[in-house]
Formats: sequence, C-alpha cells, structure tokens
Amino acid sequence: MRVSKRLKYWGWGYEGDGLSTSDRDALLATLAVEYGINGSRTGAVPTLDDISLPRPRLTPPTGLAPLCTQEPYERVLHSFGQSQPDSIRIFAREFGHAPDVVAYPRNEADVVALMDWAGERGAALIPFGGGSSVVGGVTPDVDDGFSGVATMDMSRMNRVLEVDTHSRAARIQGGARGPELEAALKPHGVTLRHFPQSFQHSTLGGWIATRSGGHFATLYTHIDDLVENVTMVTPAGRMESRRLPGSGAGPSPDRLVVGSEGSLGVITKAWVRVQGRVRFKATAGFRFSDFVQAAGAVRAIAQAGLFPANVRIVDGVELAVNGAGDGSFTLMVVSFESADRPVEAWMGVAAECVLDHGGAPDVDWRSTPDAHLHGAAGAWRDAFIRMPYNREVLTPLGIISDTFESAITWDRFESFYRSVRDATRQAIREATGQEGAVSCRFSHAYPDGPAPYFAFHCAARPESMLEQWSEIKRAVSDAVIAGGGTITHHHAVGRDHMPWYERQRPPLFGNVLARAKTHLDPHGILNPGVLVSSGE
Amino acid sequence: MRVSKRLKYWGWGYEGDGLSTSDRDALLATLAVEYGINGSRTGAVPTLDDISLPRPRLTPPTGLAPLCTQEPYERVLHSFGQSQPDSIRIFAREFGHAPDVVAYPRNEADVVALMDWAGERGAALIPFGGGSSVVGGVTPDVDDGFSGVATMDMSRMNRVLEVDTHSRAARIQGGARGPELEAALKPHGVTLRHFPQSFQHSTLGGWIATRSGGHFATLYTHIDDLVENVTMVTPAGRMESRRLPGSGAGPSPDRLVVGSEGSLGVITKAWVRVQGRVRFKATAGFRFSDFVQAAGAVRAIAQAGLFPANVRIVDGVELAVNGAGDGSFTLMVVSFESADRPVEAWMGVAAECVLDHGGAPDVDWRSTPDAHLHGAAGAWRDAFIRMPYNREVLTPLGIISDTFESAITWDRFESFYRSVRDATRQAIREATGQEGAVSCRFSHAYPDGPAPYFAFHCAARPESMLEQWSEIKRAVSDAVIAGGGTITHHHAVGRDHMPWYERQRPPLFGNVLARAKTHLDPHGILNPGVLVSSGE
Repeated sequence: MRVSKRLKYWGWGYEGDGLSTSDRDALLATLAVEYGINGSRTGAVPTLDDISLPRPRLTPPTGLAPLCTQEPYERVLHSFGQSQPDSIRIFAREFGHAPDVVAYPRNEADVVALMDWAGERGAALIPFGGGSSVVGGVTPDVDDGFSGVATMDMSRMNRVLEVDTHSRAARIQGGARGPELEAALKPHGVTLRHFPQSFQHSTLGGWIATRSGGHFATLYTHIDDLVENVTMVTPAGRMESRRLPGSGAGPSPDRLVVGSEGSLGVITKAWVRVQGRVRFKATAGFRFSDFVQAAGAVRAIAQAGLFPANVRIVDGVELAVNGAGDGSFTLMVVSFESADRPVEAWMGVAAECVLDHGGAPDVDWRSTPDAHLHGAAGAWRDAFIRMPYNREVLTPLGIISDTFESAITWDRFESFYRSVRDATRQAIREATGQEGAVSCRFSHAYPDGPAPYFAFHCAARPESMLEQWSEIKRAVSDAVIAGGGTITHHHAVGRDHMPWYERQRPPLFGNVLARAKTHLDPHGILNPGVLVSSGE
Repeated sequence: MRVSKRLKYWGWGYEGDGLSTSDRDALLATLAVEYGINGSRTGAVPTLDDISLPRPRLTPPTGLAPLCTQEPYERVLHSFGQSQPDSIRIFAREFGHAPDVVAYPRNEADVVALMDWAGERGAALIPFGGGSSVVGGVTPDVDDGFSGVATMDMSRMNRVLEVDTHSRAARIQGGARGPELEAALKPHGVTLRHFPQSFQHSTLGGWIATRSGGHFATLYTHIDDLVENVTMVTPAGRMESRRLPGSGAGPSPDRLVVGSEGSLGVITKAWVRVQGRVRFKATAGFRFSDFVQAAGAVRAIAQAGLFPANVRIVDGVELAVNGAGDGSFTLMVVSFESADRPVEAWMGVAAECVLDHGGAPDVDWRSTPDAHLHGAAGAWRDAFIRMPYNREVLTPLGIISDTFESAITWDRFESFYRSVRDATRQAIREATGQEGAVSCRFSHAYPDGPAPYFAFHCAARPESMLEQWSEIKRAVSDAVIAGGGTITHHHAVGRDHMPWYERQRPPLFGNVLARAKTHLDPHGILNPGVLVSSGE
C-alpha cells in the first residue's frame, strides 16, 4: 500500500533511520559509567520470518477489499505503538494479538463502510493515526468477545482541504501527519505550529483524539485550543460541530471529541487555528544549581504573562544521560517567537526573572542569536530529536527506558516532585534489584503549575522485563495519583493508564462517558478497553 | 432573609439605584430626536400589592423550612431574570409562574437535601445565582408535569474558601458574586479579573454554568479558561474533578460542567485561576470612519499575538444612543494591563496596527495616561456602566431595547454583520411598522474571528409588546444561525435560545447531553427546558 519509505515495525521512524554508532555508544557508555546501568541481553531485531502471526479471522467483503490488506508487514506494523511494553513484546516476538485486517480508508464514505462492516461482524476497530502512542492507544489487545480486529489506518486521508488565511484557519483531514500538513500550509505563509515530539509520525486526528501537547511550553500548549471545529464519524452517524472562533452555547461539543482516543468515533477532519510563520526568535540557556530553584524561575516567568514559546528546565541526570551536561546543573531553555514583531523586549523581562531566581547564562542570547544551537541547550536539543530512537537500542539489551508525565499545581509541586522521583527510584530497586537513573524536566508550564516530565533507565532481568516494567509503572502511577497529579498531561490514557485514569476521573463523569459510548458506538467496537471499561 | 439593600424585582440592581433624571432624559431625547423612537405607554413599576401570586403548591418539610421562604417579595424577585421578555412580563404583572418556594442553602448538605426533597416531590428546581440571566435561564417557566417549582438561590454560599497565592488560584463557593469574591481576594494581592457586564449581580457558579465572557477582549475571555476544577452536586451525587493546571486524560470533565446552565447539577465551588493585581495600564481611543474598516484593525491586533486587555469597537449608532458620539464615526478602545511590567511597548505595536488600518487618535494615550476616562472612550465607558439600568425606563414606555451577540470567523464576518444588521432592521419594521435603531460593537476578538454584539431599540405597540419582541427575536436568531454564527457567544442559551441552540448543536451531541441529563438528573427536575428538551 505504500510507495515511500517503509516504517519500522520494531521502533521509531523509517527503516534505515536511527542512532549513529557514535551516539549509540555514547548513550550506552553514559548509562554504564555514570549510572551503572549495563544491558545484558543482546536480542536481534525480529525479521518478518521470525514472527508467527495468527491466521486472520476476518475476510473483508469484496466491496471493501481494495481498502484492506492482510500482508504480514502491515499486520506486524499495526500490532504495536511506541510504548516500552510494546517494544519489549516486539523483541519477544509476541504478535499473537496482531490485527486480522488493516484498512486504509480514502474518504469519509470508506470510514462509514468499514465501521458498518466491523459492527455487523462484531469485530473490534482500532483507529490508527501515526502509530506513535506510548500508552497502548493503538495496540490491538482486545478481549475474546470480538470476532476479530481490524485496524483503520488513516494515512490516506492526509490532505489540507482549505486554507483561510484571512481567519488564520485551515481545514485538514484527520490522517495528515505533521510534516505533510505543514508542507501544505507553508505556501500560504501559515503554520499550525503544533510540534509534539512525535510530530513526524503522528496525525492531526491523533493529536485531537489524545489531547496532544505541542512543543510550546505556554499559552496554547494542547491541541484543544487550536481546534475550531471537528468532524467525527461514529457508528451512530456523523457529528460535526459549527466552525466558530468562540462560543458560549452549552457545553462544548468539541471538548467531548478532544481526548476521546478513538473510543467514540474517528476524527475525519477539523478546522484548526493557524498562525503566521515565525520571523522573530530569541532563545537563551541558563544554568541553575538545583532543579527546584530552577522551577521557581519557571513559575515567575509563567506568572508574568510573557507567554514564551519555551520555558523548559532539564535536570542534571537527564542532561548527563543525553550527553548535554555533566550532571552538576539544571538547564533552562527560554525562547520567544513571533511572526510580527521583534521579541527582545519579552526575552529581556524573562532574563531578569531568571537572574532574580539564581540562574546564570549558559550562552549569552544577546551576542549569540542562535543560542539554542550552542552550549548545553544545543546539545540537549540534538539529543531530544534523537530520543525516540534510543529504545530500539536499549530494549534488546534488557534496559528499560521509559518516560511519564503529569501536571500539578505549584503549591504541591515540590512534594510531588520528590515523592514521585523517590517512588520511581524505589520501584526500580524493588523490581530489578539495582539502582536506576531517574530524571525530570518540565515540558510545559502554566501560571498555576508545571507539567513535570520524568524519565528513567534501569537494567532489567531479561527473562521478566515486561513484568518488571509493569511493577515500576504501577508504583510510579500510584505515586502520581497519590501526589495529586494527572496520570497524563499529554501522552493520553490508552490501555496502559486505564486503572489510574479511572481513579482520577470523577465517577459520575465516567458514567456519562460510558453512556456517550453506548449511544455513539452501540456495539462497542471502537478501540475497546480505552477510556470506557467494558464493564461500565 | 436579607440584611442589606434589597434587590429590585422589576429591573437591574438595588432599590434606589438607577439612571439619574438627566441621563434618563438624555437617553429618551436621543432615541426620539435621532431615531424617531418615541415611547407611548407610561406604565408604573408594579408594587407587591399590584402583583397577584398563585397559591404556593409546595410546603417545605420541617427540616428544610429554615432554609426556605415563601414571602411575596422573594417569590416575585425570583420570578424573572433580566431579559427583555422578563421585563415586559414584569410590567404586565404576569407572575403566574412564580416559584412556590425560594430556598437559600448554606452548604452542600443543604443543596443535597433540597435536591432530594424536590426529586421526591416531583418539583422543578431552578438554580439561581445573581439572577442576571438575559436569556430566560432562571425564569421558572416549566411545564405542568411538575408538582411545583422551587428556586435555589445560592447567595448564602458566597465565601472564598482558600487562596493559594503560590499557584495563583483560589477556591470559591458557587454563590459568590463578583464584588464579594474580589473583596476577599484583594487582601491576598490577587484578582480573578473576570468582569462580565453583570459583575455586580452575578456569581462564580453562574459564570461557570453559563460560560460567561468577561470584560477582557482577548486571551482568557471565557470563564472556561479560568476553571482549575469544579464541584457540582447533582441528584445522582457529587462530581468533583481533580485540581490540575493542565491535563490530557480523556475528555475534560470540567468542560461538561462549564455551560451546563443548571440543567445537570448545581455548582457549589470551584478552584479558579487568579492573577496578580494590575499595576500597569495603558488605554487609547481611536476613531474610524467605518465599522468594517475598524474591524480590519481589530483583526490585525488580534492576529499579532499582543493580547490586549481590550480591543473593542463601537459603531456610530451605539455611540449616539449612549451620548458618546454624533454617529459619524466608529470608536475603538484598546487597552493593555499588566501586574508585572509596563505595557507601553505593547500599546506602541497596537497603535501602529491601528494607524496602518486608517484609525485616528481620539485622545492621545501617551500624553493622557487615563485616556479611557476622556473623549468618546470615556463617555461610552460611563454609558456602558449605566446600560443595565436603561430597560426599566424604556419597557414601561413601550420601547423595546435588547441585545444579542454571536461569534463568527473573519472570512464570514462582513457578510454576517450586514445580513444580521439588515435582518434586524427589517424585523423591527415588520413587527412594529416603524424604523428602529440597530447598532453593533465587538465584545471580544479572537485571532480567527470577532464576537459581534448587536443592540437595537424600537417603539412597540403597547398592547402586543411581547409578541413583537418575539417576532424580532425569531428573525434575528434565524439570521445569526443562517449566517454561520453561534446563537450565543457569552449570554448563554437559557429558555430563549433553545430552538436555535438545537439547530446549531450537532444532533448526536444533543443525544449525548440528553443521556448525561438522564443519568445525573434522573427525574429531570433541574432547570427543565434548558439545554435538554423534555422530548429528548
């Protein structure tokens, strides 16, 4: 079905893409030397011949056959997302749950026809955008009650349909990936400017379904705020909201769709708010001796109404793991961007906040306009872009490398940070019998609190890597919920976060969602197990 | 039940408050001389003795009796909100639908007890905040299926419970009115900074229930964005969301409550985002020869990422009606505010935008720091504060004076503006046989479109004022929906906008809301007729 480069089924990106040998060696050396984390298994990438797929239980009808494939590569590719447990199971060659059919609808009529067919056949239907879910959102683990599983890959519905530069809005199909939609917007002089880390391999529909968080740290962080209207096809019919810049007419219909994670319908298109392309930019890096001290500076900037494009802090452990520091300092990266006007005045005020809170310049932004490419900020930026490739190196060595993220109000931040960090260290110790490396950064910052983003590395016993990951995941998720945080700030709920999502969610709201599901998806075929438990 | 000044039951504010004789005479003279709108009826304010109330059908049980009153003043006061049809019916002494009981809960346990009692008795329960609804949101017009009507006035639950200055957030009870909550926040150096025109006589719970729009024209316009969490008591139980600065965990539970208009539950308290008190301010007034030309300048400012506190344009008709202009120009008021830093740089960029788009200074903001108190901007500001008092003067004279507001993307704005304005003029002509005055301003402006706010005045035939108003309302609402706008940008749906809200709302979302209602309010007692039709 594909004419261009093939996606890897065992990790991030296209076949042939990945860490360079030197980056790989540097990563492994840092983990070993700095943190004593040594991989012990040397699993090879599974070939298609290695993988035993179950016989397909579904056969698409003649009318839909041209949209469907049952080729092994396609079934394997759609068997997993990009989570740590997904990676462990890939290298363990556990493909028993592979979808029976992968369908590529070309338009809304195809989506409707596929949904009708799945409903009639009692098959589960998994909406699949770019497959970048790190929470089991597209992993087709469904219960035995279904006659089979079809995955609906939206990548053919990838066009920018209309661009309204006057209103700064564009209508885009749900299957458009980041680079595709930005390429189509560029000739119009506008940009959606929503850059999640998964940008290359995630779609507008996926962003809306998962309440994606972009690269920008303040103001319009979540896709939620960029949605002007949305069209969703459900088994019960088509639901399209009115295209409006603002409204006060009842609860927002869009806000039911935003975050629905493929469990209520498939997002086929949306009007989204775009912006003028950035012409003015200033980035600065600052060093702090302590993460909590740096957090104080973030708070000051976030509460000053400056709305920087970025105000990220990265602790010493994360810098060291990624070769961007020696572990002795916390880095802050602040940047301002504008399509319309120079941003130096804004940066000047932010820099004052930082110096007031004990920060010291890493690279001087006034004399080095491309400061973000230099110093620790530049080194971390390079590592950030490579990060998704790390896992396919580490998993086969038996090294668990995972992240999780939350949000918490400032008054509870310090105790939350310490308790979650300590719980993660403790869980690694208990699950693996060894010390791990636990780090933290802020991905986003609000006037009322930050979004702390934790990462951890540890060496697992090869024979029970999945169980050890699960044990750690349980403990850190318990700590997040106990500390008052959200189980996810922008990674979504998927299958992996369900138990904690259900603890976080007001029970009555869960009941309302279950009733929405029953109405919109009466046979319960859409992404079963996500958002609404089958028992509800 | 009240110790302080009594509220008027026939109009806006407290007894004794209202237009001065000179302001009243000036308003009437302008309407007569400029627009030929002459009042012909001279109705007196109805006294309590004039008003015939039906015998109460409900008797509160002993346990609840201390919370309840059936005094005529209270029943009369809670018979209406502040809409034009409410006012017409008040002066026509139509109180046949008065609530049987008015209850003042002191805490959540009281709210639960009152809800249980109403449910058992089959009585409708109308949540009542400040009573400022201009859309029939608190007018207890319910169908005959109910055994009676109780209005639940939240004004005793009016405390600020906690202030977290570190996170810039406060927990406030739903019944707190604007001045009350600001007074309690002030000693902490913070402000909610949400100033709807109804500020004095509306409550936090009411703002959340109706998706209130504040005074500020950009960025955080709706209360939606200021809600950190919310607690709602429903007949099915209590629903409280987690207090978070941001989240990506499923569809937002808060966004179901925001805009629920008392039909799903009663908002008892919420954590809201507060800000530092404003220390720096700059306001400027500009004149344009044409409203559409001025709209172009608003678009430029809204798309420049400057986020002014205000960027309001008011057309010549509205200026003239309010004694702030001679009708020959459109006024723009731009202001910037900050708690942290001088705002001159921001104003400088905005002023350039304005001059580029053909605006001319009204009062020079650089030399006159309190420019908003001078010139046409100052005159309009004074009139804006008085506006809610106009109606009690005009209604008894048979002059209809009403407003409605919408939002529309920029690409459709000009045709929307002309078609709605022309439809309003035409509807007035057809309903009354005379010309009226139709004006427009922008209350809010987004990068992707403005929120046009229309006002109109016309002389009605006294004997059928309500029918004429209804005819005009139908025509303008049809035009708003036909033009692609929302039936309300911040006034809410209430009873008056239901037919158009149902046309605007995606039908499947309407079904989901109906299922939410059935679950949360199984006996359908809460604000019947609002948001969810009884037939659904």
